[in-house]
This record gives sequence, C-alpha cells and structure tokens, in this order.
Amino acid sequence: MFFASDNAGPVHPKVMEALSAANEGWAGAYGVDPVTKRAIEKVRTAFEAPEAAVWFVPTGSSANSLILAAMAQPWDAIYCSPSAHIFTDECNAPEFFIGGAKLMRVGDREDRITAEALEAELESWPRDVHTPQHGPVSITQVTEKGTLYQPDEIRAISDVAKAQGMKLHMDGARFANACSALGISAAEMSWRSGVDAVSFGGTKNGLMAVEAVVIFDPALAETFELRRKRAGHLFSKHRYLAAQMDAYLTDGLWLEMAAAANRASARLADGLRNVPGAAFWWEPGANMIFAEFPRAAHRRAMEAGAVYSLWNGGLDGDPDESVGCRLVCDWSMPDERVDRFLDLIAG
Amino acid sequence: MFFASDNAGPVHPKVMEALSAANEGWAGAYGVDPVTKRAIEKVRTAFEAPEAAVWFVPTGSSANSLILAAMAQPWDAIYCSPSAHIFTDECNAPEFFIGGAKLMRVGDREDRITAEALEAELESWPRDVHTPQHGPVSITQVTEKGTLYQPDEIRAISDVAKAQGMKLHMDGARFANACSALGISAAEMSWRSGVDAVSFGGTKNGLMAVEAVVIFDPALAETFELRRKRAGHLFSKHRYLAAQMDAYLTDGLWLEMAAAANRASARLADGLRNVPGAAFWWEPGANMIFAEFPRAAHRRAMEAGAVYSLWNGGLDGDPDESVGCRLVCDWSMPDERVDRFLDLIAG
Amino acid sequence: MFFASDNAGPVHPKVMEALSAANEGWAGAYGVDPVTKRAIEKVRTAFEAPEAAVWFVPTGSSANSLILAAMAQPWDAIYCSPSAHIFTDECNAPEFFIGGAKLMRVGDREDRITAEALEAELESWPRDVHTPQHGPVSITQVTEKGTLYQPDEIRAISDVAKAQGMKLHMDGARFANACSALGISAAEMSWRSGVDAVSFGGTKNGLMAVEAVVIFDPALAETFELRRKRAGHLFSKHRYLAAQMDAYLTDGLWLEMAAAANRASARLADGLRNVPGAAFWWEPGANMIFAEFPRAAHRRAMEAGAVYSLWNGGLDGDPDESVGCRLVCDWSMPDERVDRFLDLIAG
Amino acid sequence: MFFASDNAGPVHPKVMEALSAANEGWAGAYGVDPVTKRAIEKVRTAFEAPEAAVWFVPTGSSANSLILAAMAQPWDAIYCSPSAHIFTDECNAPEFFIGGAKLMRVGDREDRITAEALEAELESWPRDVHTPQHGPVSITQVTEKGTLYQPDEIRAISDVAKAQGMKLHMDGARFANACSALGISAAEMSWRSGVDAVSFGGTKNGLMAVEAVVIFDPALAETFELRRKRAGHLFSKHRYLAAQMDAYLTDGLWLEMAAAANRASARLADGLRNVPGAAFWWEPGANMIFAEFPRAAHRRAMEAGAVYSLWNGGLDGDPDESVGCRLVCDWSMPDERVDRFLDLIAG
Repeated sequence: MFFASDNAGPVHPKVMEALSAANEGWAGAYGVDPVTKRAIEKVRTAFEAPEAAVWFVPTGSSANSLILAAMAQPWDAIYCSPSAHIFTDECNAPEFFIGGAKLMRVGDREDRITAEALEAELESWPRDVHTPQHGPVSITQVTEKGTLYQPDEIRAISDVAKAQGMKLHMDGARFANACSALGISAAEMSWRSGVDAVSFGGTKNGLMAVEAVVIFDPALAETFELRRKRAGHLFSKHRYLAAQMDAYLTDGLWLEMAAAANRASARLADGLRNVPGAAFWWEPGANMIFAEFPRAAHRRAMEAGAVYSLWNGGLDGDPDESVGCRLVCDWSMPDERVDRFLDLIAG
Repeated sequence: MFFASDNAGPVHPKVMEALSAANEGWAGAYGVDPVTKRAIEKVRTAFEAPEAAVWFVPTGSSANSLILAAMAQPWDAIYCSPSAHIFTDECNAPEFFIGGAKLMRVGDREDRITAEALEAELESWPRDVHTPQHGPVSITQVTEKGTLYQPDEIRAISDVAKAQGMKLHMDGARFANACSALGISAAEMSWRSGVDAVSFGGTKNGLMAVEAVVIFDPALAETFELRRKRAGHLFSKHRYLAAQMDAYLTDGLWLEMAAAANRASARLADGLRNVPGAAFWWEPGANMIFAEFPRAAHRRAMEAGAVYSLWNGGLDGDPDESVGCRLVCDWSMPDERVDRFLDLIAG
Repeated sequence: MFFASDNAGPVHPKVMEALSAANEGWAGAYGVDPVTKRAIEKVRTAFEAPEAAVWFVPTGSSANSLILAAMAQPWDAIYCSPSAHIFTDECNAPEFFIGGAKLMRVGDREDRITAEALEAELESWPRDVHTPQHGPVSITQVTEKGTLYQPDEIRAISDVAKAQGMKLHMDGARFANACSALGISAAEMSWRSGVDAVSFGGTKNGLMAVEAVVIFDPALAETFELRRKRAGHLFSKHRYLAAQMDAYLTDGLWLEMAAAANRASARLADGLRNVPGAAFWWEPGANMIFAEFPRAAHRRAMEAGAVYSLWNGGLDGDPDESVGCRLVCDWSMPDERVDRFLDLIAG
Repeated sequence: MFFASDNAGPVHPKVMEALSAANEGWAGAYGVDPVTKRAIEKVRTAFEAPEAAVWFVPTGSSANSLILAAMAQPWDAIYCSPSAHIFTDECNAPEFFIGGAKLMRVGDREDRITAEALEAELESWPRDVHTPQHGPVSITQVTEKGTLYQPDEIRAISDVAKAQGMKLHMDGARFANACSALGISAAEMSWRSGVDAVSFGGTKNGLMAVEAVVIFDPALAETFELRRKRAGHLFSKHRYLAAQMDAYLTDGLWLEMAAAANRASARLADGLRNVPGAAFWWEPGANMIFAEFPRAAHRRAMEAGAVYSLWNGGLDGDPDESVGCRLVCDWSMPDERVDRFLDLIAG
C-alpha cells in the first residue's frame, strides 16, 4: 500500500523491453542515433506539432529549469502559483539555471494561477529598470494539489501573458494524467491553448527517468542544446533515454498508464467519500488526493504498513500530530491495495 | 518642491570639502590610504564595534547584495517583507550576487516582517533537500513604507532567526533617519538588537555615493573582499569613497542631516493632518510619507511644479487617476518649501 | 568497426539484468531504497574508503562539475591540462556550476599537468584580491590523449597542491581502464596518491548512464546533495542508477570490461605499429589511440564503413584533409573487428 | 616619486570644480538629469558616433564586465591576450557578470592578440555543442604591458572576429593615453577600426571614479541598462558621475592629461635608456614602463622613498630578489620627480 508518490513505482515492462531492444551494437552518441530520431518524431506526432523542438532530459527539474532558462532573462520575474513545484521543491534549480531570476507567487489560490490574479499581479508593478522584469508564466498540469486546469483557463492565462509579450510554460510532470482525466489531446492541452513549451513528464508515469522538452516556438529553442550540454544533461548513450520515450508513445502506452493511475485514484477517492470524518482539501482531478481523515484511521493505516505523506508531517510523522495526507497512485496500483487501504481507514 | 526622493538632493558642503581635502598628491589605491583607515575606524566607533569588518561601496544595491551573498548560499531562501527594496527594486541584484537564491516574502504586513510571521513561514516548510533552505532574514530600517521597527521588534525577529541558525541583515539605506527618529544609538539599532550586518546608508542622507558595509560576525566577512572586487565594486581611488564617510561621521553630521530631513517630513505630515480629505497609508516614522489627498489638491501641487511620486502612477501620472503619493524629504529641504506645498494642498 | 568512442557501445548484459531485478514493486524515491544503499557500500569497498561520501549522477560532466563546485569558489582558478575535458568539452559546465570560476591551462604538455608546471604556474601569480584565487587542481586519468599518470606523478601533483591548501580532483571517466592498465587498486589511484575526490566513470565502460562521485574529504561533501538537487541531477527513481553501479562492482565486472577494452586497444596498437607510415601521437596507455597513417589507408577504412574521429576533421571529415585520428575501443570490441580494420589500414 | 599606478594620483582641479557646480539643488535620480544628458552627448561627439549607446559606471572592471556580458553568452569563450586585465586582475569579474563564460588566452605574445594567433586559435576548435562557443574578442589599448596596437592591427583582429560573427571589445582604461600617443581620434581607435564597444577610461586619467561604456552596436545595448542596475552599478545621484565625464570632455582635458602623463613617461624612459644595465621588457608606448635596472639602483630608489611595483615582487619586495619593475606616470607627475628618480637610478 504505497501511496507516497508516483515516482516510487516500477517501470512498465514494455519500457524495459524497449531498453533491451535498443541495446544492440554501437550507436552514435549524444543523440545521433535512430532511436532518438524516431522518438522525437513520436513526440511531435503526439503533440500534432511537426515543427516542435524536442529534447530528452532525465528529470523534471532539469526539464523545467532548462525551459525556463530559455524563456527568461536573469532580471525577470517568473510567475507561478503559490504551491508551484518550481517554487517549493526544486531547491532553487530554476534560479540556478537562469542565473538569478525571481520566482513570484501569484494570487491566493494555492493550487493555481488564475488569469485575473495574474493580471492583477502584473498591473501592480511599475515597469522600470528597478523592478524585476516581466518574464514567463509557469503553470503545472495536473497541479501540485491534484486539481486540473480546464483548457479555457489555460487559454485565459496565456492571453494575459501574451498581451504583455510573456511566454507560457507548462510543467507537465503529470501531463498524461491530465490528458486522460480531461479527455483532451496533447495539442489541446498545450499549444492550442496558448502554451509555448511543455515539460512532458514520463518518469512519474511508468518510465525510468525521461522527460521530453517540447518547445513550440523555434526562437526559444535556439540555445536549448547548449544549455542542456553545459548543465550536464546531454546523455552520451542517448538511445536509452529515447527508447523509453519511444515505448511510451507506442500504442498509447502513456495514456494507458495514466488512465490506470487515475482509475485507482478515483477508486480511492470514492471510497474516502464514504468514510465518516474524511474530507478532501482539494477536489481530486487525476491521480493525487489531498485528504484528511480521523487520527485513529491514520494510525491503523500506518500500523498496517501503508506508506503516504502526512501533511505537513512527512512519512515519519506522528499520526496524532497530523490531520491531512497526500495519497498518490501510479500506473501499477492494484485495486486490491486500494480496497485494503480503504478498509483500514474505514476501520 | 522636490519630494520625489531623498537621493535627488545635493551633497552636503562639508562632504564636498572633505573630498577636496582628500585630493592631495598620491595615495595608495584600493583602500590602502590613510583616509580609508580613518573612516573605517569612525564607522567602528559609531557602531561601538571595534572588531567590525567595514567596507565602502557606492550603492545601496551593492551593499545589500554583497552582504546577502556573504550570508546566503544559492540554494537558500532569503526572508523579507512584501515591500522589501531587495525584492521589488533591485532588478534581482541579490539573486545575481548570490548566484540564484530565492527571495521569500513573509507575512501580510506590507511594510515589515514580524517575528510571528517569520516563525509561521519557517514552520510551514519541511526541511529536506528539495525545498529552498533556510537562509538569512533581511529587514529594512526605516522601512520602505516610512515606518520604523522598534528595537524589541528587531530583537524578536533576530531571536526567531538565530534559533534556526539564520543570520539577520538590516538594509539601512535610511539608518541615520531611524537612529534620529527613535533616539537610539547605531549599536542599539544593530548588533545589540541581534543584527549581524548592516548596509549603513550615506547616499540618501547627504553623501555623493557611499554606503558602509558593517559586518559584526567575522565569519561572514571572510569572503567579502573578493566578492566586492569581482563585482566591480572595489574602487581604485578609494580615498574619495572614504572621505565622504569620514565627513559623515565627523561631529555628528550624519545625525544632523537625518534630523533635518525628519523634521521637514514631520512638518509636512503635521500640515497634511489638517487637510480635509487627507490620510496616511502608513503612520510616518522618519522622512518618508505615504499619503492621499483630494485630486484637486494633487492637481494644484503638480501644476505649481511640485515633484513627487504618484502611487502607483509615477512622476508623470495623471492626478485624476491617482489617489496616493509618496513624499520624501532630504536634509536640504527648507521649511518654506514644505509650507508652500502645504498651502497648495490645502488650496 | 566503430572506434569513434567508448560511449557508443552497448550496455553489458549483466547490467541490464540488474535493472530488471531492481524493477520490482515500489521503492523509496530519491535514493532511499535498498539498492542505492548497497551500491554505495560497494563503491566504498572498491575504494577501501568506508567513510567516503558517494553519490550517483548520470553524466561525466555533471560528476566533474558538481565536484569542482564543491571544491572551488567562483573567484578561484581551477588548474587543468591544456587538453582537459573540463576545459575543452563541457561547454563551460564547470564555470556554470561554480558560478563563474576560471579554468587555467597549466604547462605545455598537452596531455597532462606535471608537478613542476603546476608549481611554476602557481608561483607566477601574485596573491592578492585582484587575481583569480588558488582553487583546486583537476587531472584526468586515463588522460584525454590516452596516456596514463603514474601514481607517483599524481602524488607529486597532490603535494604541490596541498602545500598551497588546494584540493585535487580526478576526472576518472576511464578510471577502470587506468586501474586495469596500471594494475593498481582504486585506492592507490585515488586517496592513497593524494586525490580528494573522483568522478568514477561507468558510462564509457559498459553502463547505461551512471558515474559515481566519490569524495574522501567529508568537508567537501557537505553541500553536495543540495548542489546535485538544484542542478536537476537528483533522480527520483534512484534505484535504476544504483542498480547499474551495483552490477558494475559485482564480481569485478568493472575491471573485466576495462581489461577487455584495453586488450582490444592494445591489439589495435600492436597492429598499427607494423603499418608503414603509421605513428602514434601519444604512446597509448589504455583503450584510446591517437595515430596517423597514410591517407590512402584512411580512405580504405572509411569506405569500408569504419567509424572513427579524424583529428581535427570530425567523423565526416575528408580523409585527404586529415592526417590523424582517434581510435577508441570499448568492452564489446571483438578481435575480428580490430583485425579487419588493421587489414584495411595495412592495405 | 610615486610610479606605482596611475590610479594613485589626484583628481584634476577642473573635475573637482565640475562636481561643485553640479551640486546645486535637486536633480532627477538614476540619470534623469541635465548633466547626464550633456555628458552623454559629449561622449558621442568625442567618438563621432551620434547614435552610440553611452553609460557611466564607476570602475574599469564594471565597464569591462558589463560590456562583455552584453556581448557574450555563458557558454562562450572570450578571447584575450595572455596578460589581459580581464584575465589576470579582475578576480573573475567577467565570468561572474556573464554567468560562467571561459576566458581563453590567445597566442604567445604576452602583451597582445594578433590576428594570426586569433585565427589559429579559432581554427583549432571544432564547432559543436561540446566546446566553448565562439564569443567576443577583447583587446586592451594601451596594453597591460604599456605597448600600443596600431589601428591596422585592430582592424585585422576585427576582420578575423567579424568573419566568424564575433564582436570586438576594447578595454580602454588608458584609451586617452593611446589616442594621444598615436595621434589618432577616438573614432579611428574604435568603430572605424572595427571595435564594437569601448570601456572608455577616466579614472586612471584624472577623474575620481568614472568610465564611460560606449556601444556602437545598438543590438548590444538593449539589455545593458538592466545589467547595470542588477549589478548595483546604477548610481542614484548620477549627476556626480556625469559631471566628471562632462569636465573630462570639455576643452580637451582628457587628451591634455593623457599627453602630460605620456610626456612624463617618455622623459622617464629616455633617462633610463642612458642608465648602464637598464633595459625595457617592452618598448614603452604611452605612460607605462616595464624595465629592469641594477639592483643597487633599485635599492637607492626605494630607500629614497620611490614607490613602484617590483615585478613580481610587489611594492614591499626585496630589491635583491627582483630584477624588474613597472613604472607608471599619471597626469600630475612633475618633471622634477622624474628627474630625481633618474638621478637615483643612475647613482
């Protein structure tokens, strides 16, 4: 019963097979190999963006930071939600990659930016040489609180940004889960809604360690390759990054795994709704749940070996001290584990 | 009637005389000269801190950024008030000097940090490798809104910081105005209240372009000289920086000028209190006033040539659009200008 | 006949098996898993350094840059050979990670630093606030020119560095090849010879994408974890990095693969010695050869599909324009390919 | 008898007068004042460049670093001579401002870059994602060894740079001395010879602390203002920077002072030519001499209170240990001091 994170689960067997298949003989290093070429084309196809610039990097932080570095100047502010991963969970990686920009939390909705809050934030600043300048906006989909932006919300944010000449980045660590939950395409979720670049996550959704950087604006792509290299993120045996992404985008595996994770999470949420004293902090949208339930239930679950994050108590927290938790399901979560957990919580 | 800023006024004649006096023959470069030696000692004496490390730099942004760089690691958060100059008005200079730290606005009191808000902010963060780490706290005295921290407020903030091993910096661009207004010594305002380093302002208070960096903790001082040099802030003809500070700290000139500025500001505030429809956004504490008054009064003042910042309309703003303003007095503000302005506002 | 690089070859089957074995169920993220714990211990055992700090990162550039960042200040010079990978082939990654240090080429021996040249370089600089300061020394073993440092050479360099309070880093992208060629242990190659930290390569020697950072001086290790995280190099599914290193250090696989690569290279070198007109630019020490041979031989080899780097012509160079080449063998190079290539060269 | 540096001398009286004249009443801060406007126009006139972007900064390191940051990307190499001030004497300031570029020493002529050496250096590098990229070239006029580039040498370097799309910067800390010595205009020395931006020095030539940044290519100027601000180099009381430059460029004061310095240096050099055992390390071109003379002469001079740099012994060096020295004259050097020094050296 491991609900601590979707990065704790195993790699999908088809991805392991793809790695084995790629492991034949010599191949050109640093991305000059046929697997890479093929995987890039599959990303373009998935996004219906034949001209997109596509790169593979090993972690979400590197994807986010490299994209933001390509979008922002060091004297810029980058606008994000109060709970944005880039603000709270990357140990200042974006600031490092950009060379000292400022991350600016927008509005008082913890899980998201709204177009209105963004507009108000931008209007509150004079524009002169003293202030942080208007840099890009970054939103996360699925949000860090497990909720979802609707496409028209994304479009509205993009409209505000574009009116000021600002770019829009999407941290899509759980992009597949969002596509699956909303039933919309990768293109609708991104460039058709005004997104300029996406960190297209794979690691949290059944891959070993790959995220695709997808940049729709070629001007942003110019320096990306140099940035990736000098950050130590250009892999020499690049085919093994590419093979994972290749398998991911073959026969809809990425959506299949996301749907499985979302389904398990929905089963879990449905069960919790019936637990007396249980409540959601945010309405769950995909594969992540923020909930509270009685302390006795916490204690039963933990004693039975369930693993999940107590908020803000950490994995080792004392249930008596905590009232909330984060529960995440990945593609490999079986129904019986969900049900067993629900039994424990229900008492 | 120039109330736009205290950095718009002239240099005090005694400072000009000191520059002339220093302009004799050759002198060792880069701080190896008798004027520098003497000025450093005067700063130490003024702060009752004979062991303090003291350096001179030309601007407030360089003083703040160099101190914070000596205090913080690039993966740290630096805690400041929502209106902190280092957050809003230095074009990301601290982030540049530190190499990418994160400035974190604390609490919902716009003009200041409180010990309670700081404690709550620190407690809200888990401490692991993912989050920004606990770096220094920076407060501004006089605050950017013209208010004052009482010494016990500073001490309380320092106590919270020190309990976590964090340092406390004071942006003292208007340090002299605060000492004069509160009637306390430089030592009480700083190290006796738990401050580890001060940007001791001179430029806004009658000097040409000098701030003293005063560091009470020798461990913080170790790398300062190298940081200053590689930021292009080590002056070759250093005696001219030092001569200004030397004059500033001779016969109490620094407090004399601050008192004059505070007095002019108090005269202005007293007058505004009697204007129907006028109100203060913050209770003025030193030489800076945030006030609103009727639009017709604005128009009369501006048409008569008064210069001040419309908030947030800028110097060129349309009075009809604005309801508030910032008014600052420097040491050279004559009573008659204040009175003439008040006449215009009163109509 | 692929001699372009040892990063073009396949992953050893035992490493693939280890990845599969690690792919069971959930595991703690970010290194909190049993495979990571085990692999770290194996590195410590291999280096006879039970207290060493050990981390895994995916690329050689990230290993080198993170170590150098832990060792150096941004105002330092880092001393390296004229052909050092960190100077010529990492797109300024070390400077990025350190925040702006200066790489200083030492001496006129292209493949290496000598203790004498290092001493002369250090003595040629005054030590004041204006100059780059004395930072760490970095040497590469096997060198970028395929030659080897003898342990006493390393010790002599370390002695010069230590006398000045400087640290010594070893870029060991081909560390295993060096151990195998010289017949000495990892400990002798590193800390027993005065090395403070090693980039212990795996990727060029049969792994997929892992280098171990091995730091013998605990003071250097303090900030490493934060640096790795904020550079985007902390893997969430960390067990897959660790599993590779675990297999590498099981039953001597790392030395077995290195010996195979060295053997193939020696066979190739021996063959070339008998080719009229062939000559070595440096005496080959491990698995990399810099040689020239007649243009007609180049043409025959390339037309037959041999792949290797023409120096300085690149893989696509015109053989008529080039007289030299770099030939590298990895663990998977079969004798028959070497022999076929030699037949082509011999004509 | 102070020959240690031209930054040790006094400020010219006319400059002090200009500072006093500027010290009247209030003036707009941050460069919005009439003195700044006038001084900028005078720089443009002096360079016959009515469209040039002009900024004032307080130090040579800030001028050089800000210009190079506007010209270079962090993944670039910047090409300079082996003795370039930016390489040896700015504590890695350029690397700091650019965010981690690499300074590349070109050729084996210590005092200068030649077009041939630059071309050879550029050709020696493959151009791919791994190497440092081709960034700007920086030359110093007067060179750090007191010699001069002829205009056709500058043009030849520029031609090599421009053929590769690279920019050319001139560190003109002693620009006035070069103009005076060569008898050519500021325009000939700079844009007419292919220079894209100049650090136009004032501090070493009779000003207090001002250098003008002169950028001929508007594309380079775009970000300059933000870079200056975030480096803490935007002065609030900007009129006092401007007033110095205003006086400098009035009635040819800049050339008058440079001519005086050069004349004193020539008198000194002429005298040394007649001293048995004296020799020049480089043929003196302007106001700086690198010479050796007998140890007994050194001792007599130092005992009599002469101050100059022993190379590499520093000001406090033991003459018995040193054989060479650097002697610099500034605008204020009287003939009698030169003659007295020559008498001492001659014995």
